[in-house]
Amino acid sequence: MTNSANKITNQNTVWHEPTVFREDREKLNGHKSAILWFTGLSGAGKSTLAHAVEDHLHKLDIKTFVLDGDNIRQGLCKDLGFSDADRTENIRRIGEVSKLMLDAGVVVMTAFISPFRKDRQLVRDLVKQGDFIEIYCQAPLAICEERDPKGLYKKARAGQIPEFTGISSPYEEPEQPELVIQSGDKTISDCTDEIIQFLEQSGVINVPR
Amino acid sequence: MTNSANKITNQNTVWHEPTVFREDREKLNGHKSAILWFTGLSGAGKSTLAHAVEDHLHKLDIKTFVLDGDNIRQGLCKDLGFSDADRTENIRRIGEVSKLMLDAGVVVMTAFISPFRKDRQLVRDLVKQGDFIEIYCQAPLAICEERDPKGLYKKARAGQIPEFTGISSPYEEPEQPELVIQSGDKTISDCTDEIIQFLEQSGVINVPR
Repeated sequence: MTNSANKITNQNTVWHEPTVFREDREKLNGHKSAILWFTGLSGAGKSTLAHAVEDHLHKLDIKTFVLDGDNIRQGLCKDLGFSDADRTENIRRIGEVSKLMLDAGVVVMTAFISPFRKDRQLVRDLVKQGDFIEIYCQAPLAICEERDPKGLYKKARAGQIPEFTGISSPYEEPEQPELVIQSGDKTISDCTDEIIQFLEQSGVINVPR
Repeated sequence: MTNSANKITNQNTVWHEPTVFREDREKLNGHKSAILWFTGLSGAGKSTLAHAVEDHLHKLDIKTFVLDGDNIRQGLCKDLGFSDADRTENIRRIGEVSKLMLDAGVVVMTAFISPFRKDRQLVRDLVKQGDFIEIYCQAPLAICEERDPKGLYKKARAGQIPEFTGISSPYEEPEQPELVIQSGDKTISDCTDEIIQFLEQSGVINVPR
């Protein structure tokens, strides 16, 4: 910190550069920040897992935040619909917010279908290698459709939802995700453990033994 | 946390509700979260003060983040220009991101001219009373223009920037800001102290003595 005793009026001492950076926040927090990008079909367990992982991490004093439909579609992206262009813009904005949260020192988790490879790649390219952890929640369509927690598959089959991922719009599987979770048949607890283990092995967090 | 041992496949145990809330994060952090919304003319010292306050707070182990032109206009809002509609959308998005940061437990500071009352009111209305702390950086136009740290007033006077706040576009002063800072003639240090004192008095932070 410099020049704080100087008047802002003195043009030679105008000073508005940041002095607190991501690394400083990570040091204060005692853990690294990261983006855990959950992707997969509706019903694959993305939100469930993101919140279970958050619950686990919070108990370890780790700063977390989950971005999902509940806090994005009613807020930041409430002006967007579900056309291809709007879906792309939706993911772009979520990516930018994730990047800000990353800089803020938070382990941010996103739970969106995010069906298109190019959109996920765009987010990956926003940040440094290692910051974007793509977690593919791989569950067979049949299981997702059987779960149908929000009744969306039923509506989609009845033609009430156009362009529904897995039914009338494609889901492009990740080619090289950091983690594949078989969320169709494992327990929440087992899936969570796999993710925590990954975060530990990749040095994001240090789990006390 | 409940049901974590259950399979996600069992529809009766589908569980994706958050278990970690703002209050839990505030407890973990040891301070409340808040939005410090700096508003004022270009050159009034918004960014300078936001970063000086952040520097001060960070040294007190407080989780902070600054949103300003540098990390918003190149990212989340890079699709927006400077028409009235785009300015409004710009502030709306910044408001929504601030709200997310607030929920994430962070003392978030925003440094944007945000010249229109209705736009600032829209952000205020997004959050609970007390969460939105409007800080009016009140500096005379003549001083801001003299400082002209980015050379923008010069360009505006030469007609190279249409609708420049204070020159060819109005700045609507806050009617009831939480704090007015005379940033035209006080030192950065004095301005910072006033803001820290306010945060202490309003219970956002506890400054150790």
